[in-house]
Amino acid sequence: MAQDRLRFFRQARLGPGEIARIRPLTRDNGTSIILPYDQFIEHDCRHFEAESDAGNPDYIMELGTDLGFNAVAVHYGIARRYWTKTEGRIPLIVKVNGKTSIPSDAQALSTATSSVEDAVRIGATGIGYTLYYGSPRQDEDLPQLAAVRRECERYGLPLIVWAYPRGEAIDAKGGKETSYALESAARLAMEMGATIVKSNLPKAAKPDFLKNEKVPKYYRELEEQLQKMDPAAQATERARRVVKASTGIPVLFSGGEGTSAETVVMNATACVNGGCFGFIIGRNMWKRTKPEAKKIVDQLTALLDKA
Amino acid sequence: MAQDRLRFFRQARLGPGEIARIRPLTRDNGTSIILPYDQFIEHDCRHFEAESDAGNPDYIMELGTDLGFNAVAVHYGIARRYWTKTEGRIPLIVKVNGKTSIPSDAQALSTATSSVEDAVRIGATGIGYTLYYGSPRQDEDLPQLAAVRRECERYGLPLIVWAYPRGEAIDAKGGKETSYALESAARLAMEMGATIVKSNLPKAAKPDFLKNEKVPKYYRELEEQLQKMDPAAQATERARRVVKASTGIPVLFSGGEGTSAETVVMNATACVNGGCFGFIIGRNMWKRTKPEAKKIVDQLTALLDKA
Amino acid sequence: MAQDRLRFFRQARLGPGEIARIRPLTRDNGTSIILPYDQFIEHDCRHFEAESDAGNPDYIMELGTDLGFNAVAVHYGIARRYWTKTEGRIPLIVKVNGKTSIPSDAQALSTATSSVEDAVRIGATGIGYTLYYGSPRQDEDLPQLAAVRRECERYGLPLIVWAYPRGEAIDAKGGKETSYALESAARLAMEMGATIVKSNLPKAAKPDFLKNEKVPKYYRELEEQLQKMDPAAQATERARRVVKASTGIPVLFSGGEGTSAETVVMNATACVNGGCFGFIIGRNMWKRTKPEAKKIVDQLTALLDKA
Amino acid sequence: MAQDRLRFFRQARLGPGEIARIRPLTRDNGTSIILPYDQFIEHDCRHFEAESDAGNPDYIMELGTDLGFNAVAVHYGIARRYWTKTEGRIPLIVKVNGKTSIPSDAQALSTATSSVEDAVRIGATGIGYTLYYGSPRQDEDLPQLAAVRRECERYGLPLIVWAYPRGEAIDAKGGKETSYALESAARLAMEMGATIVKSNLPKAAKPDFLKNEKVPKYYRELEEQLQKMDPAAQATERARRVVKASTGIPVLFSGGEGTSAETVVMNATACVNGGCFGFIIGRNMWKRTKPEAKKIVDQLTALLDKA
Amino acid sequence: MAQDRLRFFRQARLGPGEIARIRPLTRDNGTSIILPYDQFIEHDCRHFEAESDAGNPDYIMELGTDLGFNAVAVHYGIARRYWTKTEGRIPLIVKVNGKTSIPSDAQALSTATSSVEDAVRIGATGIGYTLYYGSPRQDEDLPQLAAVRRECERYGLPLIVWAYPRGEAIDAKGGKETSYALESAARLAMEMGATIVKSNLPKAAKPDFLKNEKVPKYYRELEEQLQKMDPAAQATERARRVVKASTGIPVLFSGGEGTSAETVVMNATACVNGGCFGFIIGRNMWKRTKPEAKKIVDQLTALLDKA
Repeated sequence: MAQDRLRFFRQARLGPGEIARIRPLTRDNGTSIILPYDQFIEHDCRHFEAESDAGNPDYIMELGTDLGFNAVAVHYGIARRYWTKTEGRIPLIVKVNGKTSIPSDAQALSTATSSVEDAVRIGATGIGYTLYYGSPRQDEDLPQLAAVRRECERYGLPLIVWAYPRGEAIDAKGGKETSYALESAARLAMEMGATIVKSNLPKAAKPDFLKNEKVPKYYRELEEQLQKMDPAAQATERARRVVKASTGIPVLFSGGEGTSAETVVMNATACVNGGCFGFIIGRNMWKRTKPEAKKIVDQLTALLDKA
Repeated sequence: MAQDRLRFFRQARLGPGEIARIRPLTRDNGTSIILPYDQFIEHDCRHFEAESDAGNPDYIMELGTDLGFNAVAVHYGIARRYWTKTEGRIPLIVKVNGKTSIPSDAQALSTATSSVEDAVRIGATGIGYTLYYGSPRQDEDLPQLAAVRRECERYGLPLIVWAYPRGEAIDAKGGKETSYALESAARLAMEMGATIVKSNLPKAAKPDFLKNEKVPKYYRELEEQLQKMDPAAQATERARRVVKASTGIPVLFSGGEGTSAETVVMNATACVNGGCFGFIIGRNMWKRTKPEAKKIVDQLTALLDKA
Repeated sequence: MAQDRLRFFRQARLGPGEIARIRPLTRDNGTSIILPYDQFIEHDCRHFEAESDAGNPDYIMELGTDLGFNAVAVHYGIARRYWTKTEGRIPLIVKVNGKTSIPSDAQALSTATSSVEDAVRIGATGIGYTLYYGSPRQDEDLPQLAAVRRECERYGLPLIVWAYPRGEAIDAKGGKETSYALESAARLAMEMGATIVKSNLPKAAKPDFLKNEKVPKYYRELEEQLQKMDPAAQATERARRVVKASTGIPVLFSGGEGTSAETVVMNATACVNGGCFGFIIGRNMWKRTKPEAKKIVDQLTALLDKA
Repeated sequence: MAQDRLRFFRQARLGPGEIARIRPLTRDNGTSIILPYDQFIEHDCRHFEAESDAGNPDYIMELGTDLGFNAVAVHYGIARRYWTKTEGRIPLIVKVNGKTSIPSDAQALSTATSSVEDAVRIGATGIGYTLYYGSPRQDEDLPQLAAVRRECERYGLPLIVWAYPRGEAIDAKGGKETSYALESAARLAMEMGATIVKSNLPKAAKPDFLKNEKVPKYYRELEEQLQKMDPAAQATERARRVVKASTGIPVLFSGGEGTSAETVVMNATACVNGGCFGFIIGRNMWKRTKPEAKKIVDQLTALLDKA
Repeated sequence: MAQDRLRFFRQARLGPGEIARIRPLTRDNGTSIILPYDQFIEHDCRHFEAESDAGNPDYIMELGTDLGFNAVAVHYGIARRYWTKTEGRIPLIVKVNGKTSIPSDAQALSTATSSVEDAVRIGATGIGYTLYYGSPRQDEDLPQLAAVRRECERYGLPLIVWAYPRGEAIDAKGGKETSYALESAARLAMEMGATIVKSNLPKAAKPDFLKNEKVPKYYRELEEQLQKMDPAAQATERARRVVKASTGIPVLFSGGEGTSAETVVMNATACVNGGCFGFIIGRNMWKRTKPEAKKIVDQLTALLDKA
């Protein structure tokens, strides 16, 4: 008999709509791989440098469909104008908030580019929301997320929270890439009611982190221990800890900035070994040629097949 | 005939829904002991250092049930995903606001992580709200609390106000742990319509408090007198004064940061002697092993039995 | 035939609900004396220094009833929990906004602690609102007051506006106690639609006021003239001018900070001679022993009897 | 046959309610003269210095009626309490926003003292709104005005916009009294949908204006030309240009600060020659004795009769 | 058979209302030329310097009609008062947000001057909205645009987004006229759901742009390449790239500040060669004499005829 397709969602209690919609977002063995394409808001148009037709939403829809992604994640304009042309061939995640990176990130807040109701109306299967953990504007972020979460619950849509440490206060505590920051962000997403957490794979903290008295002692000592491990084991442990911090809420790891195919696969291996639900991988897909993207996807799905 | 189970609620007039829901939140003799588990938002993930499975909400639900707590107090995500799995085995308090401690607390404001209606829908018995007494953003805090209070009244739910002095202005007047600050905070919670006040046991003020002209003369003189008392009597008097400041609104004292079992019990004795309604004690529970937590709970309940 | 009980309300046109509710708020001869008890929010808990059971709302209700006050004015929490226990024995004014004095008053704004609808629901006879004349946050204060005024009109409740100069801008123009500031504040309350204005009796301005070019020439010259008058006549003239500035809207004068019984009565005499509608006097009541408070009330009512 | 009473309103298309309500606001020949009495909010109580009973709203209503004004313009409190006593003898303009001048005007914003619906309910014929052209808080002012304009349209009320340059940014560009600033303000009022524009008569700019590179070259050159004209022609041309900038939306000129009767009439002559619809003149009316005010009104109406 | 009139709208999926309303906004061959007249808010009244009757909205309506423009784009006041007098002779775009340029543009935000519903009510065919790409207040701009977009969708109106880089953060990255800034702005408009993008033709960046490390490397290298091209090819390539960045959403190029007729036509040629949908050209029309404006329009339409 087949593996439980919803096995990553058995630790937390979901609503009936969430459960019904998780199914099309998963692969047979219950894992998932999603193609995000919200980066042109966050990163301006620099991605035109791609070796592919990256700027073209129609190309993205084709890529997502042809390479067997479980969904695309885009802002409303693209969803409304281009995803609709797929006539439902690939499930849709609408990313409902965003911002550019032109102004400083010191007090980052990502605000509404559309609403959950907009997403429901055009046929979305899920919602994406960026939470900036530790930003000085968390007082606006948390109620905004709570309202999105409430709407998701109202319509029965799964909510994927991009759990991103950000801002001057987290910079003063070691930056946005540490295990400390990313575990705490993932945890907050869970406490806020996420259905799925999106995280980045943490990296080793910089040396001064260990002496930074603003950082909890526990995390400084932990960091010291982690850095003694060999790279592969260390990455796996960092991934495993994010999964643990999300506490039963499945974790999708991002692919991060463009890097070598080897690194992508190496990191993905750590994430799978760490117990992740799957991947949200964009730039490493649509900035490569389609055949190269396919090669990576095949490797990732092979990894997930064994998960 | 049995002691009046609602005896702590006879000095203030409650609504019928409040009264009906207070009953399951109390022990036979009318006291209460509640397990809070909202700290992973406020304190990031440092509590993973616990000797227990502290990061796991399922463990917390089990701990609360097994050790006989009258309720758990958690944010909505945990309530929705994990508390629901208890199928009502333990009453639920939904903490409806929160914030991380990554940015500065100078202008602290705790904003919505969910709503009273959310809490009602999933079956909560009560609501928790953090009020930052004396924060420069009180102008946002008071109307927000008034709105939560109104919703509680609308649905007949008891409202527990975490009455916490906080921010740069209270720091300039001796800090958040003085009798001056904590009595005033408890009083404000009552004036805002709390059903129950949650307070910390005040500590002796630092020496410069006595000469701080920003502090009312009455409290400087009081502090001088209190500090002449022996430690146990002083703690009892400090607890008694918070209870008095709450003016008939029952007070739950927090357990505070993790400390030795002896200190926990010593402080709890002072609180009980001071006339408290019970305890909200979290970190000193779920950061210990379960047997050690049980030992403390047993001592606290023995104290409360005599209350 | 008896004096017109509503005589202070004949200069301005009131709505039918306002008129009906003014009656229980007045004495036989149309004057009024109200017991305010909202000060524990504004002044923290320093009033525990009282020689009475001042911290106890039940005591306040008893005091108000026994000494023949026409109403008590309290925040919602006290109204909901304690005033309700009087079962309507004394009329209720709900003070619907407030703030602590822990942060600076430079940009003072008093925000909602409850709503007019809350007050209506529990049986209030009137509403109290603090307007901070001249505060840099007047842009928030005026619309907030306009909304409260509209709700009062909707439900037919009289609105008492605490017309208080406050903030760094008024400090730069002589401070909050001058005739200049208090007359202007009373006038603004009238222009905003108050049913009754609450004012403090102005005091003589400090010497540098006369040379302060930010102050209108008219008021500098006026102040010079006023200061040449003997104290009793000067106080009467200052009171009379506030009454005139309120332009037909009746004025209740506050008792101000605790002071000697003689001073209270002396100031009250000036206020009555100046044409006031009555008094809102709190700290000089509930911080004294009950017999001493009674002595003062008897003197004030004797004064009002002759008004 | 009589002159078209609505002739000033033929260049722009009005709604039926606007048209019906303009009629009572006009004189037989289609011009208008309105008595504003909103200044006690803006200018504190300094106007008590008047030689008349200026502080008394009843006096103002009498003055307006006796001297044949087409309407009074007041804030809601006065409208509600005193204008209602006229039982409709004189049409009412409710001024729906305001502020004191106690804090700095650098970032001026005038916020709601009442609403259009309030005004409709008590029987107003029109609405007044102060727009602060060029204020750094225009981002709040424009949407607020748009909402008031929408409500006016909803109820069919004419909207008079006080088109006032204000704030630190306009000060840096020559101040609030130049033709540059006042023409631009009048234009903005028109673009926002005003039915009638209220303006001040511009004054000659200060010498450094001509070299101020922040000011458009066109206006610096214009100013140079205007200043070469003789005073009467110059004033007429300045008035004419404001009327032109309002582009078919009729302009009421204000009387400005108290000044000699001769100056008032001289300026009014320029305004009439410039093509104005009429006057909103307050301080030069109610701060004089009634006979003196009458003398001026008679001269203004004589001027308007020839318009 | 005739060319597809809606051919510029075939790449993105539009709603039925959008499609129906695009038709009257286009010329026979599917291109469009629109007359904007919202500049008197943004640029104060300096445009009175025009050689035409530029300040007169009736003149603008006549110009738009006589010269065969496909629509006029104006703020609500002009739409309501003057466009209505055309009785539908020319389609209307209501520009629903605006601001003056009196205060600094460092933190630019353009707020509501009217609403989509206002526009629908008076008979508009489309909506215009200014988006300030990269402004520090994007957190207010994006949700505001999202709400306007939602309303447009609700009523089936096409939404033209003025995609304008603006503010101190974009100034620090080369300013508002670079290909980098304008492509990114156009892209954001598309991602937000624009039906049509309005852009300016980019200009060559200043020399320090190439060394500005805040600018993405890709754009610095691109700029270097572009600057090596001959002027006409360079302009065409810059236009073509904006069109590409808009990704299937048709682009209208603005005429920009007044300049020589030759330059206007030269730039327009580049835009047409770059694949634009048409033009929004205002100042270069209504600031010239009507015959001169006609000459330019004739050249532009000749260009578009070949598009």
